[in-house]
Amino acid sequence: MAVRFARRMDEVRASEIRELLKLTQRPEVISFAGGLPAPESFPVEALAEVTGRVLRQHGAQALQYSPTEGYPQLRRWIADHMNGTFATAVSADEVLITSGSQQGLDLSGKLFLDEGDVVLCESPTYIGAISALRSYRPRFVEVATDDDGMVPEALDAALAREEAARLVYVIPDFQNPTGRTWSLARRNAFMEIVRRHRIPVIEDCPYAEVRFEGAPLPPIKALDIDGLVIFLGTFSKIFCPGMRIGWLAAARPIVEKYVLVKQGADLQTATLAQMQVAAYVEDRDIDRNVERACAIYRPRRDAMIRALEREMPGGVRFTRPSGGLFLWVELPEQVNARELLAACLEHEVAFVPGGSFFPNGGHENTMRLNFSNMPEERIAEGVRRLGVVLRELVGRADADPLTAAEAAAV
Amino acid sequence: MAVRFARRMDEVRASEIRELLKLTQRPEVISFAGGLPAPESFPVEALAEVTGRVLRQHGAQALQYSPTEGYPQLRRWIADHMNGTFATAVSADEVLITSGSQQGLDLSGKLFLDEGDVVLCESPTYIGAISALRSYRPRFVEVATDDDGMVPEALDAALAREEAARLVYVIPDFQNPTGRTWSLARRNAFMEIVRRHRIPVIEDCPYAEVRFEGAPLPPIKALDIDGLVIFLGTFSKIFCPGMRIGWLAAARPIVEKYVLVKQGADLQTATLAQMQVAAYVEDRDIDRNVERACAIYRPRRDAMIRALEREMPGGVRFTRPSGGLFLWVELPEQVNARELLAACLEHEVAFVPGGSFFPNGGHENTMRLNFSNMPEERIAEGVRRLGVVLRELVGRADADPLTAAEAAAV
Repeated sequence: MAVRFARRMDEVRASEIRELLKLTQRPEVISFAGGLPAPESFPVEALAEVTGRVLRQHGAQALQYSPTEGYPQLRRWIADHMNGTFATAVSADEVLITSGSQQGLDLSGKLFLDEGDVVLCESPTYIGAISALRSYRPRFVEVATDDDGMVPEALDAALAREEAARLVYVIPDFQNPTGRTWSLARRNAFMEIVRRHRIPVIEDCPYAEVRFEGAPLPPIKALDIDGLVIFLGTFSKIFCPGMRIGWLAAARPIVEKYVLVKQGADLQTATLAQMQVAAYVEDRDIDRNVERACAIYRPRRDAMIRALEREMPGGVRFTRPSGGLFLWVELPEQVNARELLAACLEHEVAFVPGGSFFPNGGHENTMRLNFSNMPEERIAEGVRRLGVVLRELVGRADADPLTAAEAAAV
Repeated sequence: MAVRFARRMDEVRASEIRELLKLTQRPEVISFAGGLPAPESFPVEALAEVTGRVLRQHGAQALQYSPTEGYPQLRRWIADHMNGTFATAVSADEVLITSGSQQGLDLSGKLFLDEGDVVLCESPTYIGAISALRSYRPRFVEVATDDDGMVPEALDAALAREEAARLVYVIPDFQNPTGRTWSLARRNAFMEIVRRHRIPVIEDCPYAEVRFEGAPLPPIKALDIDGLVIFLGTFSKIFCPGMRIGWLAAARPIVEKYVLVKQGADLQTATLAQMQVAAYVEDRDIDRNVERACAIYRPRRDAMIRALEREMPGGVRFTRPSGGLFLWVELPEQVNARELLAACLEHEVAFVPGGSFFPNGGHENTMRLNFSNMPEERIAEGVRRLGVVLRELVGRADADPLTAAEAAAV
């Protein structure tokens, strides 16, 4: 068969993360590869109770089609929650319910991007955003990013240089993949530049509430007085990911356009799932869930940092996030993390090579480690194995560069 | 604010159906506009029971991320169900779970269409397919369609003429909007032509099981020996629409491409909803649901046909479907159905003007009537009102064409 696919399919590749998840599903593998929240934090029994109540109360309406915009009670709760937690000023009709915040990314590409348009993003950035937006065939311009966030001068220069710039995509809190959080000064500087260039911004904000220490910072949506910021939120990290309920919040004229795009994409997000989540969050204290998740993740983050300090050879640097699910490791220049992964899989430990998080490639000596989904002792053991394999690889590369290439062929 | 949207947004319009649904939600309106299944047919209590069981059995796994391809048990059930009901030969790994079959349409556009490519479709065709595919900026070529289905000679000529033809989109059973079903001869002729031109086909099949009389016909997927047909299925009409569980079934190499596209679009369809549907269909007899739905729809279809025969003035023609949710009305040439709708809304009766179902416009003297969502006496009363308004409009148009235009301005 020689069926012809659209040109965009030349660039659409299997996500390394998803493919790895398949390889690493055997329980004996210590996987730092996924981005899975800890299942111990999911309110299974409460959800069973809530579902019975929703079906008794709403009956067949819970199983019927409903408006594209989303279930009104849930939109209202989200607006209130955002305004209470993040000091935004969002109204319920500025909220669109999406099928996870991944859908918010896809709809954003469809709404804003023609082929050849430029998307500016952090370097590195979320792999799922790269794959969602890549379908619309933009050019990605990576903007220099350091421990305090996107570098304002670099953004300003890129916006001045790139006439086809149409969209900026950022994750200011506990970024995926680096775990870094932007300082307040950087947030303000960012918004000043964005305002001057009048360019829409996607603020992807799945992790802000998953904070282990320190004071919360306002999302850039809270600093946005021109309606340029589209905020993507999700229940995946504060409730559970398997119901696929996310949202976006943006100025009314922009939300109306998103609604049209969503109609074509999937008509609406599931009615029952929206009602289940609405009933749950109205009834329970979602902040308790977040506390429960943080109480699980904080010692895991600590265990991973301790293990890295203990097990990593010289020349390895890593981030120390104050929240979220991930940290980021920079290996010595001569180490290729894809080769390292191949060797690690033989020792039943997995991670995501960092190169995938750079839309324009390079940076093969980096990796992302997830710390949310393994108990502390497994984290310690996994990092120990990682250290063994890494030291061997570094030693061999130092002794004989050719041998490293041979090792990679394994 | 002067934010710039992608060019595709110039053509993306609010769906008339969705906007109308909002206008017609007041209970006093008799609406033939939507495509809502009858809520009386939804198994509300059984679903509550099933949900408790799923959560007890799967625990937190029901709320966790899961593979893009879909829940294995559900994929297997769907393959078995299709093979049993439709005499196809689909395997579980040829099935991808989608967020309703609307998502199957969007993913199809993304997978197959570059700007300017040609989509061939029935004339008229499903408005949701037009809006999903239009995002990818194809050119639509409408192929002549009569009471027996797409006209083979017209399809063959179009495929020979249109070098940019990339996709054929069809609804062979109880088509939306016309209610028409293709004859077996037409199905065979269609597949012979498609095979000769080696062009992929989207077979949208939400209604085939909702048959009131006569023997079922094989879907074209069952006649496809070259792996050219992508079958879109859904639980919306045989179970309930509000959980947004649909699927597509296609040859393995094509399904693998769809999986990549779906990863970028929304990662996966909700885990819990898939498990709920799987538990329901494994446990209960879904054919009983279909029988229950048909037992509700059949007398409604009969009531609508009787009322149309009684109330419509001369020069009105309509289809008499043997299943599905819709029938199609052709009004006298001089009547504009959008004007008729404006007048009807004042009498609290609604429908969808047929022009929206023709991607290239025209045919303003047509309308789609839904008969599945109103009891018989409301159908009779709604069609009576429709007749009153229509006769007045026809009378006025005959007497004075200008007055009709004035009426439309109301």
